[in-house]
Order: sequence, then structure tokens, then C-alpha cells
Amino acid sequence: MGVDFGTLSARAVVVRASDGAELGSGVGEYAHGAIERTLPPTGQPLPPDWALQDPADWRSALGTAVRAALRDAGADPSAVVGIGTDFTACTVLPVLRDGTPLCEVPALRDRPHAWPKLWKHHAAQPQADRINDLAHARKEEWISRYGGRISSEWQFAKALQLLEEDPDTYQRTERWIEAADWMIWQLCGAETRNACTAGYKGIYQDGHYPSEDYLAALNPTFADFARTRLDGVPLSPLGSRAGTMTAEGAALTGLPEGIAVATGNVDAHVTAPAARAIASGQMLAIMGTSTCHVMNGDRLAAVPGICGVVDGGIIAGKSGYEAGQSAVGDIFAWWTGLGVPRSYLADAAERGQDLHEYLSGRCEGRPVGAHGLIALDWMGGNRSILVDHHLSGVIAGLTLATTPEEVYLALVESTAYGTRVIVESFEAAGLPVTEFIVAGGLKRNRMLMQVYADVLRRPVSVASSDQAPAVGSAIHAAVAAGLHADVAEAAEVMGRVERAAYVPDPARADAYDELFAEYRTLHDYFSGRPEWAGNDVLHRLRNRRNGATTA
Amino acid sequence: MGVDFGTLSARAVVVRASDGAELGSGVGEYAHGAIERTLPPTGQPLPPDWALQDPADWRSALGTAVRAALRDAGADPSAVVGIGTDFTACTVLPVLRDGTPLCEVPALRDRPHAWPKLWKHHAAQPQADRINDLAHARKEEWISRYGGRISSEWQFAKALQLLEEDPDTYQRTERWIEAADWMIWQLCGAETRNACTAGYKGIYQDGHYPSEDYLAALNPTFADFARTRLDGVPLSPLGSRAGTMTAEGAALTGLPEGIAVATGNVDAHVTAPAARAIASGQMLAIMGTSTCHVMNGDRLAAVPGICGVVDGGIIAGKSGYEAGQSAVGDIFAWWTGLGVPRSYLADAAERGQDLHEYLSGRCEGRPVGAHGLIALDWMGGNRSILVDHHLSGVIAGLTLATTPEEVYLALVESTAYGTRVIVESFEAAGLPVTEFIVAGGLKRNRMLMQVYADVLRRPVSVASSDQAPAVGSAIHAAVAAGLHADVAEAAEVMGRVERAAYVPDPARADAYDELFAEYRTLHDYFSGRPEWAGNDVLHRLRNRRNGATTA
Repeated sequence: MGVDFGTLSARAVVVRASDGAELGSGVGEYAHGAIERTLPPTGQPLPPDWALQDPADWRSALGTAVRAALRDAGADPSAVVGIGTDFTACTVLPVLRDGTPLCEVPALRDRPHAWPKLWKHHAAQPQADRINDLAHARKEEWISRYGGRISSEWQFAKALQLLEEDPDTYQRTERWIEAADWMIWQLCGAETRNACTAGYKGIYQDGHYPSEDYLAALNPTFADFARTRLDGVPLSPLGSRAGTMTAEGAALTGLPEGIAVATGNVDAHVTAPAARAIASGQMLAIMGTSTCHVMNGDRLAAVPGICGVVDGGIIAGKSGYEAGQSAVGDIFAWWTGLGVPRSYLADAAERGQDLHEYLSGRCEGRPVGAHGLIALDWMGGNRSILVDHHLSGVIAGLTLATTPEEVYLALVESTAYGTRVIVESFEAAGLPVTEFIVAGGLKRNRMLMQVYADVLRRPVSVASSDQAPAVGSAIHAAVAAGLHADVAEAAEVMGRVERAAYVPDPARADAYDELFAEYRTLHDYFSGRPEWAGNDVLHRLRNRRNGATTA
Repeated sequence: MGVDFGTLSARAVVVRASDGAELGSGVGEYAHGAIERTLPPTGQPLPPDWALQDPADWRSALGTAVRAALRDAGADPSAVVGIGTDFTACTVLPVLRDGTPLCEVPALRDRPHAWPKLWKHHAAQPQADRINDLAHARKEEWISRYGGRISSEWQFAKALQLLEEDPDTYQRTERWIEAADWMIWQLCGAETRNACTAGYKGIYQDGHYPSEDYLAALNPTFADFARTRLDGVPLSPLGSRAGTMTAEGAALTGLPEGIAVATGNVDAHVTAPAARAIASGQMLAIMGTSTCHVMNGDRLAAVPGICGVVDGGIIAGKSGYEAGQSAVGDIFAWWTGLGVPRSYLADAAERGQDLHEYLSGRCEGRPVGAHGLIALDWMGGNRSILVDHHLSGVIAGLTLATTPEEVYLALVESTAYGTRVIVESFEAAGLPVTEFIVAGGLKRNRMLMQVYADVLRRPVSVASSDQAPAVGSAIHAAVAAGLHADVAEAAEVMGRVERAAYVPDPARADAYDELFAEYRTLHDYFSGRPEWAGNDVLHRLRNRRNGATTA
């Protein structure tokens, strides 16, 4: 059984360990989804850039999804030998020593800081800025492993925000744990910490977290944070067994007590074996609301602006690289959510298409650049390579003749340009990207996939499964249960990919080379970076907006 | 009787000459509106940036509007003593010596170049560029009267495009005439040329058109253009009588034969007396699909980037200045036309509001900058002060939380910033702008008017009439009929304005000062001008778009 905890729902899949066949699947929605406007118990408004979740939603969605998958497969629960799970990251929460989320402690339920902070909580940028400035000032070795910048999305920035904005709740925080590991705790009754989130999101490098000296310099009260709230549990390698299913876990899921529970994992990284993307140079992009790029390498290299490189971060024994784009599908959904002409709604309904299919269809076959547009894909900030979540999006070239589908196409292209910036950063650091493999919901958009092939000038392969992260979790479950020797072997048997499903059109790729040069010029200008003679207008607009909203 | 020929319809109003009371009004729509996609008789697609009209629509709309106004007023046609008309400009057409439009010559009906070119026909930019380069190279004195740049919208650029793209049709062109004057020809049977369009749109300065030498250097075949196709008729001052109504004019309009027909005029300029905006320093903005700014001064000064300064161009005896913004209301209509969420449509319908009122209402009272956005208002190009119709719009600061009404507000603000650039250019040239007076449909949007007051840091006065251009034409008719001594005297009796209807809020004006500085920085950057270290990306995008569309 593999279970993938996404941003809005959990998906479970029953996979046959002998050949990877997907026998059945099920979904459980989170009742509160992403909590971005008001805190559920009180209705109090949340500040700008906040994003929370409710752990009760995760438990409930797990039970629903696993039971639905078993029913769909017509499977006897007793035939399930193991469960693996993966989660969005860095989604992190404060808990008591027994794993109780602080937001479930009655006295703390109305404190926003007691709730899990979702990966896209972007309100800890001031803390992230200080973390980075101090790391560079002190020449901390670990900073180069994170592209030179720790993200505001990650464990330390979010924890420091908690400490500084709500010190009482911080004092009640006995452990600070990734949702990926917290979920495993619910299943096997023991706290574990997986090597992947500890490395990428928890600044664990070369056997230790950042030093107490460093943390004290950030904030004296923060000095013992890593020792008391993170450390104390040996890290678990990916593919290992975290424990066995407890009675409580069995009650939650409807699965048998005593089956193997795999170590927690991250939705992106866990997908690599499912898409057979584990060789060095195979870049896997998991494209949904956001995009996460993971790629194995044979050595630890410093790549400016990536999320991180972690020994064994994707698969034990390799150097796992991660980069990302904060918003991709979210941008397209934002655009269609602003509205389309009524005639489009009627036309799409008549064809039985959703708006994404419909707008994509209207764009297919157009000459490159016929829309006259170029956009910066920063509507959700920029995770790589600028690592700056207070940037925002730009659309240039608009005319009175510009149509909704033209903007849609320009937004699709902008995300492809954003990916190309990342690919070029890897290559500039001496890590060739030999293949681009896509998993996630956006792989079904043929227009988008072709744009990526043309913009990247590379064949684009496509993971076969529509539930590739959940299959990846099932692969880890199969290894934890002892059915395969290791994750690489399991991937050979259980993973599926369609190689070179899209190939670049040379003429269109030439045109996109020119448009990408325009993108890069605007990227550097609007980054606001002094070294690129940037205009810092986007930060000034953001500061004004957040000031006005708070006031 | 005053008749205002707009972009999509003609509006007639019956005005009492003794006190300016509007007794009745009527509208006639143009059956073909603005012809921008395909040529009506053949359905052949038009190239990008084209905009044509059908003169039959003008005649038909005139008859409909005048008769409707008479009915609405319950007026006996025999009580009408004169008619004045105004037109969009530069809307210009090729005609035979007897005034027959070439597009009504059967053999030429399928030639796009035989049709009237609407003011917003923007396909003559290459010709405009050559007109400007050559004028500067030859140090032609007249170029400084046009802010240093002749627009692609005007008579010479459009005529040169005709010559170079369809020489046969050019050879059949016996006269090249503004629609403003052509309409007068239909009423009084004689060709006249008004001082306003000849000056602003026809490069008539100090008693003559550009020299044959200059025109020959543009294109040898163009040498005699002004002498043969424009000149040969003495210019008529504004407020003068062009002639008397012919039997044909009477049949067209239902008005009596023999009544006074006033000299033709332009929709913007004719409005100044109706809004009592004729003193030096009173800037009148006619705000509708586009905005035209007109202001009288006591002397001829060179203002970079304005449309022009013409002796007697607004009122005889004063130096009339004109500037403009190519698209204003058109931008808001474009945005709402892209679509809004379904819930907005339902909500607006329930309140009985159109989308503009509805979105404006959702913006009212928000702190300045709370949307985090800034836009460049160039979706229809930039008329002043960049005089470049191949620029395009930009929106920066977009996030996943950005709403349709926030973009709407940013677009409204962008047009206010565009106006401020124009106001500051006048003041930098030593022409103080002491009052800002608004006429045109957008004056009814209270949110927008307040934004203008705040951004401009000036009281905004509002013309009282909803038909101010048509009332201005009626004022000219009253003068032509001899009921008032001159236009200034008639304006005192017949014009109406609400002074300082909106006053700036100092705190909001301070915030807008800061945002205007951001606008100006982006304005200079995206202008592409080397002297401002501009990025010429918008022109490159436009060239690629137009190339792709044509291919």
C-alpha cells in the first residue's frame, strides 16, 4: 500500500509487488484543504502569505483513501504486507513528546502558530533572510549545499518565526517534526526521522544539524532548538523499515496490525523509483500545483539557487539534488479562476472539456510568439534559483487583442522557462541533465508537455502511472517488507516510464531560444539583485501590499 | 443640432441656444462598428493592427441619431437653425473629386486600402518612423510642433502606407480627407478643411503643409501628395460657417434645407466650450475608449511627446495643445472581456450593476497599493509622450491571491499615471496645468475619478453634460448660425461644468507619489529608448507576433 499526501488530498494505491500493477486506488480529501484565509476554530483572519493545515484532515483522509483503494482493488486487507507514505514538504508541525499536535491541545487551538505550517506558508521570509545572512557571514559550510539560500518554506525559518511571533507556543513545542515523519508515528507508534526531509528541509549535513553557536547568534532562545526539538533520533535511510503497524495504525487504516511501515518520504523524491528516474542525470519533475525537480548525481556539488543536495536524499548511496518552482499548476488555476468569457464556458462544456484542456486546445499549433507575450512565473514566488518568495509575477506584451488562451499559453511557457533556468544552473555546475522525466497531474496536458520539450530542447519522458508518488511509496513499502532487496531493484520491477514521449521541434526550439533570452533578461531585472542591475520594484510592491493588508 | 461621431456610434443632441438646455438626444449605431478582423464585402482577413470603418455606417447613423433626437425633444425640425458635427480623428479616407469614398467605387470595394482608416489603425508605424527620422534629419521646423514625433495614426503615415502597399488605389485617390470634413461635404455639398484636423493631423503649420522636397525624399511618388490631395481649399476656422444645408443633406438628416452648417471639428477639441475649459491652463480630458487631452495656451511652445500644438486648434485666437492616451476605457473593457468569475456575474446582476461598476465598487476604500500591483497602460500603444503604437501593456506584482478587481484597479491607476506623465511634460515645458476637467463616459466612474484626483494631486472638475462633445458641436452650430458672436461667448451661455467635484486625499496622494515613481521607472525601461537604458523587449515581442500572425 502506497499513500501520497498532497496539498489538498491523500491518494492511496494498492500495488502488486511482483510487477508493479496498480490494482486499485482511492482518494481522501482534506476537509479544510489549505488554510490560508481564516483559522477554522475561530474564523480569525490569517496574516498575508500564511498557509496552514489540520492534522485531523490527514488522519481522516488516510482512512478514507486506504479503505477506498482496498475496495477498488477488491483486495483482502490481509494480503497487504506493507505501507509506505509520502508527504508534501516542508510541511511541519509542533508536537508534544508523545506526538500530539499542539493545535489539538485545547488551550492552544486558537493560536495560529500551533497549527502545521504547509509547505507554501511564505510568511517566514524575514527569518529566512537572517538565517542566510548569518550563515554567509559565519561562512557556515552547509549553506553551499542549499544553493546558497535556505528557503522561508523550511523547518528553521518556520520554527524561528514561531519562536519570535508566539514565544509561548514555542515553549510548549516539545518536538518540531515534518508531517512525513509525524504520519509514520501515527502508524507505528514511534518517532522516526527520515534522511530526506532531515537533509533537505532540516539542514542536516555531514552527520549534524547547525551548531548551537550559530542558532544562538540567530536568537539566544533558539540555541537549543535542533538539539531539543529535532535531534535525539537516529536518521532512517530511505527504503528502511520504520517499524510495524500498531493497533492504532490498524484502526486508522483498516490494514492488519504488524505489517511493515516504511520510513517517511517526500512526495517528489519518492516518485523517482516509480518513474525509473534514479540514474545520475535523469531529472524528474513532479509537476502539479508546484514543480519539484529531483536528480541523482555521483558526487556532492554546489549548485547556486537549488533547494539542496543530500547524501542519500533520493536513494541511499547517491547524492540527491532537489530544485523547485513554487507555483506551476497553481498559476494556471489562478488564471482560469479569474474568469474566462462566457462563450468559452459554454464551448468547453459542449466539448466536455475542463478549462485547462479547452484553453490548451485553443493554443495548439500556433506559431511560437504569435501571442506577443512573455511572463515571469513568480505568482507564487521563486523557489529556484532565486529562492525568494516575495517576488511576484509579471506579464508583458499585453494588447487589446490579447485573449485568455494567449495569456494561458504565456503562463505555461513562463514555467518552462523557469525550468530551463534550473536545468542550466545544474549544467553550469558540471552536472549534465541528460533526460527530463515528468510525473504529476500536468503530464496529461499534451500542449504543455510539447512546450517543455521545445523550450528545454530535450526529449521529455513521462511516468506511466497517474499515481506515481503513491506507487513510489508502495515501492518503498515493498522494500521495507523485504519483497525486494533495495529500492533500485524494486524500481526495475515496479516502475514504469514512457521514454521520449515528446521530442523538440527544432524550428520551435530556435524561436523559444530567443524568447528564453528575453525571459532571462526580465528575470534578472525583476529579481532586484544589485549584481544584475535589478529593479527591486517587486519587493517594494510586496512590502506595500503586506503593510496595507495588515494595517 | 450637435452630432458627435464616435468610434462605434453617432450621438445627436438638440440644444437650446439661449441657455444650453439639452432638449433631446438620439443615437445611431454603426452597423459594422470598428472593422478590425475581416473586410465586410469579402470576409478577407485584415493584417494585424488594422482598423477601418464604413462611410455608409456614418450616413445611416447620422440620419438615425438626428431623427431620434428630434423625436426625443418633441422638436419641430423647422426650429433647428444650424448643425455642427464632430468626429474621431485622425479618421481619414480616400475619395474622388466629388467626395465619393473609394470603397464605394465598385471596382475598389474589395481593396482594404480603399476604406476609411479609423483613428486606431496602427499599421502605419514603419511609415511614421520614416516620416520622423527624415523630419529630424532635415531639421524640418514643423516636427517640434508635434512633440518631436508624427503619429502612425495621422494623415501622412496612413497615406504613405496606402501609396506603398496599394499604389493602384493611391493613384485613384483624388482627395485624402478627414471624416470630420467629409461629413460636412455630405451636408453642405462643398469640400472644406477645418483648421483643427489640418493642423493636428495634417501637419499644416504656419500656412503650409510639408514641402514637396521633403515628401519626395520620403517617396518620389509622394512628392505632390499634399498639393494634389490635401491643399487647394482655404482652411476654415473653428466656429465658422462651412455652408448651408443642401437638399441631399436635408434628406439625410430630416432637417430643413438652408440651415447653417458649421465647419467640421474633432470630438475632443469641440468639447472644450461645452465643459467651459477654454482658458489657458485648463486641461480637458475626454475620457472614453481612449483619452484625449486638450488645453489652450497663450503661446506656441514645444512640448516633447504631445500630439501637437496648433494655432486656433481648439478655439480661434489661442494656441491649442493636444495630447492623448490611445486606450483607456478600451483597457478596462478588454480586461472585463477576458472574463470574471461566475460568482461576480451573478452578484453584479443581482445588484443591477455592469461589470465596471461592480469591479470598481469592490475596489473602493482599499488602501493604496494593497493589491501589490503596477501596470503600464500600453495595451493600445502609447500616444503621449512616447508616440509609439507598437508598445504593449505590462502588469507586474501578480500573485496567486490577485483578484480580478485588483487588476482592474491597477489598470485604472496605470491610466492615471499615464495622464500624470503628460501633465508633467506640459509643466516641464513651462505650461502650468491649473485644473483638470473630465468629460466623456468615464466621468461617471466615481472610483476612477477619485484615483485621478489622488494621482494627479489636483482637483478634478467634471463636465455636466453626458453628451459634452455633441453639446460642443451644437455650440459651434449656434455660432455658425449667428446666435452668438463667437465660441467663447457661446460657451459662457451654453457650457456647464461641476468645478472640483473630486479633491485629492493627501495621504493617498503621498502613496501614489511613490507608486508613480515605480511607474515612471518601468515606463522608461519598457520604452526601449536607449537614452533611458531601456529594454526593447516589447518591440521585439510585437515584431515576432506580427510576423507570426502574417505568416
